[in-house]
Amino acid sequence: MNRTDLFHLIRQKKSFLCVGLDSDMNKIPKHLLNSEDPVFEFNKQIIDATIQYAVAYKPNLAFYESRGIKGMISLEKTMNYLEKFCNEVFTIADAKRGDIGNTSTQYAISVFDKAASGFNFDAITVAPYMGEDSVKPFLAFPGKWAIVLALTSNKGSDDFQLFADAEETLLFQRVLERTSKWGTADNMMYVVGATKAEMLGGIRKIVPDHFLLVPGVGAQGGDLNAVAKYGLNDHCGLLVNASRSILFASAGEDFAEKAKLEALSMQQEMEIILLSNNLL
Amino acid sequence: MNRTDLFHLIRQKKSFLCVGLDSDMNKIPKHLLNSEDPVFEFNKQIIDATIQYAVAYKPNLAFYESRGIKGMISLEKTMNYLEKFCNEVFTIADAKRGDIGNTSTQYAISVFDKAASGFNFDAITVAPYMGEDSVKPFLAFPGKWAIVLALTSNKGSDDFQLFADAEETLLFQRVLERTSKWGTADNMMYVVGATKAEMLGGIRKIVPDHFLLVPGVGAQGGDLNAVAKYGLNDHCGLLVNASRSILFASAGEDFAEKAKLEALSMQQEMEIILLSNNLL
Repeated sequence: MNRTDLFHLIRQKKSFLCVGLDSDMNKIPKHLLNSEDPVFEFNKQIIDATIQYAVAYKPNLAFYESRGIKGMISLEKTMNYLEKFCNEVFTIADAKRGDIGNTSTQYAISVFDKAASGFNFDAITVAPYMGEDSVKPFLAFPGKWAIVLALTSNKGSDDFQLFADAEETLLFQRVLERTSKWGTADNMMYVVGATKAEMLGGIRKIVPDHFLLVPGVGAQGGDLNAVAKYGLNDHCGLLVNASRSILFASAGEDFAEKAKLEALSMQQEMEIILLSNNLL
Repeated sequence: MNRTDLFHLIRQKKSFLCVGLDSDMNKIPKHLLNSEDPVFEFNKQIIDATIQYAVAYKPNLAFYESRGIKGMISLEKTMNYLEKFCNEVFTIADAKRGDIGNTSTQYAISVFDKAASGFNFDAITVAPYMGEDSVKPFLAFPGKWAIVLALTSNKGSDDFQLFADAEETLLFQRVLERTSKWGTADNMMYVVGATKAEMLGGIRKIVPDHFLLVPGVGAQGGDLNAVAKYGLNDHCGLLVNASRSILFASAGEDFAEKAKLEALSMQQEMEIILLSNNLL
């Protein structure tokens, strides 16, 4: 899927919502725990409830890996289920990988090469600390994307991402400047936290064309309108993620219904934003 | 295992060698491909051949994840096999993880909490880009270690790790200064590439007491004596990793024998270094 295809999907669904599948075994509704695979059953019902309103799904691999091989089986089933909607969704392995070249290639295979690993994600999140040869292997797979961490939504993002050189360039700006030369706006995106919406204007000056994956709206407190104000571009250019606020909107048997309402509410806000910016 | 235990193990084996289990399915000897689980069979023979000379083993998770669930089964069998030697080896999940707090906790469970995930590593490598709340969850498990990326051995390490502020502090120095306040020399180590041995002196000024995990000796061209000259401390303070130079010393049926000779040769060099620095 390239940038034009993704924009087409956004226009079709009138939404730039990404649903984060941080499917914590300890938080899913109790009545599911008798299922053969409670996490897959939870994900399936969440997907069915939200597919109309979401353009992307982003399983957070940590929540699957923490259950070992059982968790990876839940993830594989979830991804196979999402394949049914192959032209209707964009899938992101939220994995924050990055290592020396030959190792990054193996990580890319682990999420992109179904014949080898069983997984066929469209994109993976990548940590930039190790530099060019740690990022480029993810760009060698046609139609696949690397989503590089730039400015994240968490408190600790200040520790290193705002480290400044003598010209007051911040580390995350340096990351944007350098990494954007390694790929194109058709195979790279950036993670920019919604809690830093006021910095999106400056980020758009460095990467006007790239999509930004924006976590932090919802449970982490970011504001959707502020994100849109500073972050939209002529291809929309935003995927806004919500995880906990949708997945755990209710802890009861009505969890999927409540998730649907939450996703619908975000889609409606997004439709207004897209319309009022002449993107529909 | 704490720092004193690790030093005891080093003195016992007269070695600070870590064997990196980057067990690439495409590189293991052809005659193993008929085994039920070729990667586990390879690892088992490598472990048997080198256990006398190695204090640590470091499976590189990418090489297991790239084979999907099958690969994770090979890794689980390998770790269960290593448990036989529980007081004789230190185990490192080379995973370069790091995410917001609740997600890093899940990654920690995925390698440290055997009841949940099936894995019981002593340590995990961690990428620092996301800051304090991304690193600290790995330090909340008693007896377990976080090994934070500081200055890596690859070419791309220059891109961001050498980014300098107005006082000429480099990013990796800032990482050492800040992260070392989040834990102790008994639960944190740092990755410092052997290809940057000349910078070890400066690193030792910032973290005199911490262990350093040093990849890059062997296939990547780093020099063991230079690493020792600048990196040793009064607890040895070094784990020097070799992966490809040991694992793939021969592609034939004698691979384990050749791996043993390669490990022995490194152990002998290390014994001389330890002796001549009054550490035995």
